[in-house]
Amino acid sequence: MKIAILTIGDELLNGDLADTNTAAIARILMDSSLPVCEAATVGDRKETIAAALQRLADTHDAVIVTGGLGPTEDDRTSKAAAHAFVRPLVLNDKALKQIRARFRAWKREMHPRNEKQALLPGRSEVITNQNGTAPGFHLQSNQADLYFLPGVPREMLAMLVEYVMPSLLSRFPNPPLQCQRVMSIFGLAEPDVEARINRNGLPDGVELAFNVDLSMVQVKLRAKGESAQKLVDRAELTVRKTLGDYVVSIGSDSLAGNTARFLSIASLTLALAESCTGGLIAKLLTDQPGSSAFLERSIVSYANSAKLDCLHVTQEILDHHGAVSAECAEAMAKGVHAAAHTDVALAVTGIAGPDGGTIDKPVGTVYLAMVSPWEERVERFNFHGNRDQVRLRTACTALDWLRRLAISQLSDTSRFSDTCGFSNDGEEN
Amino acid sequence: MKIAILTIGDELLNGDLADTNTAAIARILMDSSLPVCEAATVGDRKETIAAALQRLADTHDAVIVTGGLGPTEDDRTSKAAAHAFVRPLVLNDKALKQIRARFRAWKREMHPRNEKQALLPGRSEVITNQNGTAPGFHLQSNQADLYFLPGVPREMLAMLVEYVMPSLLSRFPNPPLQCQRVMSIFGLAEPDVEARINRNGLPDGVELAFNVDLSMVQVKLRAKGESAQKLVDRAELTVRKTLGDYVVSIGSDSLAGNTARFLSIASLTLALAESCTGGLIAKLLTDQPGSSAFLERSIVSYANSAKLDCLHVTQEILDHHGAVSAECAEAMAKGVHAAAHTDVALAVTGIAGPDGGTIDKPVGTVYLAMVSPWEERVERFNFHGNRDQVRLRTACTALDWLRRLAISQLSDTSRFSDTCGFSNDGEEN
Repeated sequence: MKIAILTIGDELLNGDLADTNTAAIARILMDSSLPVCEAATVGDRKETIAAALQRLADTHDAVIVTGGLGPTEDDRTSKAAAHAFVRPLVLNDKALKQIRARFRAWKREMHPRNEKQALLPGRSEVITNQNGTAPGFHLQSNQADLYFLPGVPREMLAMLVEYVMPSLLSRFPNPPLQCQRVMSIFGLAEPDVEARINRNGLPDGVELAFNVDLSMVQVKLRAKGESAQKLVDRAELTVRKTLGDYVVSIGSDSLAGNTARFLSIASLTLALAESCTGGLIAKLLTDQPGSSAFLERSIVSYANSAKLDCLHVTQEILDHHGAVSAECAEAMAKGVHAAAHTDVALAVTGIAGPDGGTIDKPVGTVYLAMVSPWEERVERFNFHGNRDQVRLRTACTALDWLRRLAISQLSDTSRFSDTCGFSNDGEEN
Repeated sequence: MKIAILTIGDELLNGDLADTNTAAIARILMDSSLPVCEAATVGDRKETIAAALQRLADTHDAVIVTGGLGPTEDDRTSKAAAHAFVRPLVLNDKALKQIRARFRAWKREMHPRNEKQALLPGRSEVITNQNGTAPGFHLQSNQADLYFLPGVPREMLAMLVEYVMPSLLSRFPNPPLQCQRVMSIFGLAEPDVEARINRNGLPDGVELAFNVDLSMVQVKLRAKGESAQKLVDRAELTVRKTLGDYVVSIGSDSLAGNTARFLSIASLTLALAESCTGGLIAKLLTDQPGSSAFLERSIVSYANSAKLDCLHVTQEILDHHGAVSAECAEAMAKGVHAAAHTDVALAVTGIAGPDGGTIDKPVGTVYLAMVSPWEERVERFNFHGNRDQVRLRTACTALDWLRRLAISQLSDTSRFSDTCGFSNDGEEN
């Protein structure tokens, strides 16, 4: 069974927009053991779309298509599909009713041009769009099932889950079992990760792959067949034993998500003082639903006046050591800790660039400080990369400190079974 | 002249990683009037990579390939290229020297497995990688030029700019002139934007397209031929006259970037108080280099205790109106304004979800407040979407308020020629 994804839109080929739909679709398919063989992107020209549809329909069992279903002139996917599979373009009553209902629900007047969105190739099944005006459609050509969805991620994903997945799984009721797991490692370089993982220690039949994503190393474990899940579970356990708490997240979890989770479980409250990250650490933590359970405040003290005023950093520290110094980081952490009355306080100050670097403190120089009843810590880092990279590496390091602190508190209270902090559900048997 | 992009990696087809390389490459090519016809993605299997390389080389004049040049076993691009174009895989001395030099520069021991990265298809030209261990290579097959680059964006982009672009431009010295411009509109829905733009008012030969990216509507103007640039300049002017200050950015500018720019130019200082956005507004502004010129602080007052303590919101307001109320937003803005002594203060408080909504104040209810010597403003919004969308829409609205305030100050002092805030360099003639 071969599945392809086709994304359509000039904006994807002229640099205006990065395609996130392919990855989002692939993730959902993989969760049902349906692998994607190929992804392709073409622009808005009818002929190009038609040619790509024909090629992919000829070489795959199913094609998931996104984009080009909107009301404007440059939305030409339906027309191209009709052309490719030699069908008339007909006004689909069911589709038109759904578009009208959508506008009624929004209490908005339907624009005449939205009627165009109900023009579908003959013998198509409508795929309902609960979140937007563009109906999707499903058609079959020779051996291939083609699913056409809008490009807006939220609309597309809902239709994928509600219509396409059940349809694919009914067509391929016994997909060859396969299992894949991605483990994200923070704090070790790729060769170190690879060297530490004793390949022979992994169960036979488990494939191992690596990927570097900024400061994270991703370890991928894959297996096929009946016992794929069990094999990957065992391999995961081996990697966790080997890498310990360098493993920061597994699967769709993220470092920020796990940090938030562990802070919540450990019932720790947190205050932040951010200079060079400018709110990024708080942003990453508050991306997580429920973060109000632990985050009390973050003081983004970008100017020295804010450091003096909100965090009670002294003028003496600024004069003698500067705003980017161990002393200032420590004072910031202590200042916000005292004011916020939280369990933990963490502060960062540094030079994100592109300007502001000196010989002693080049761009990328960052100080982190953390205070808690159990630990006080200040450290200097020299991060590589541009402004975005320095800021993100700083934020990841801060999150990792918090994650490790929360896990150590959980371990101390014996509420967690392993130092890695993941529940030990993969038995080695 | 037809150019394709091929991105390689299982991680791109199993949902682990969204491909950002295609958009980044396309943007740079478009800047030199070199359009991309097609993009494709395949996994790590040698046979699949080889088949995709053959297909794209047969149908295009140039193919830019990224990924699969790493030192690990699942990096198989060189092998696949050798196979596809029937060449031996040979140890390339120049490539090996560059890898060794890279490790020396990093003061790190070279791992024996990195030698594999110097195995390139015969008759390849090495493309130097200044930022990583994976050398790229350039080979010609029949009529096609194929450029192989690593998947790490920073390394890939540097090699694209330094080697691939000069090579492409020397091969296609007179690319058909074309010009494209993207204008981002905030505060109007897509049909409203389309209705307002009088298509007939645009110069003949200018193509118009629309795209919706969350709360932004993108208007794209394109023209071809000798006078492409002039035509697009004139069309841009027409759109700006039609949409006025709903146009928030043009080209690679962003709303946050322009907000930062206008605050800087207007010499306005800013303090923020963020509740539901949790640092996102400060993060977006401090993404911009030089933001320390205007941002004094942001108080991320996530807990009520932080609102009382840092912003002097009164217990009475919290008791009678709640933390999500016009009164609280106003008190937050006034509190941070008084403490920070900045020109402008802006505060947001709301319910980002998924929990916390009530009948009166459902998820998506957000209050914004802004105070300055020229204006005081409080407004309620009801944003649609999930947590991320509500947070982002809130942040965009806040940035737009600040952008408009900065522009109004600039207009008052006659330092700017039009209310849109963009320098009027496109003469209508």
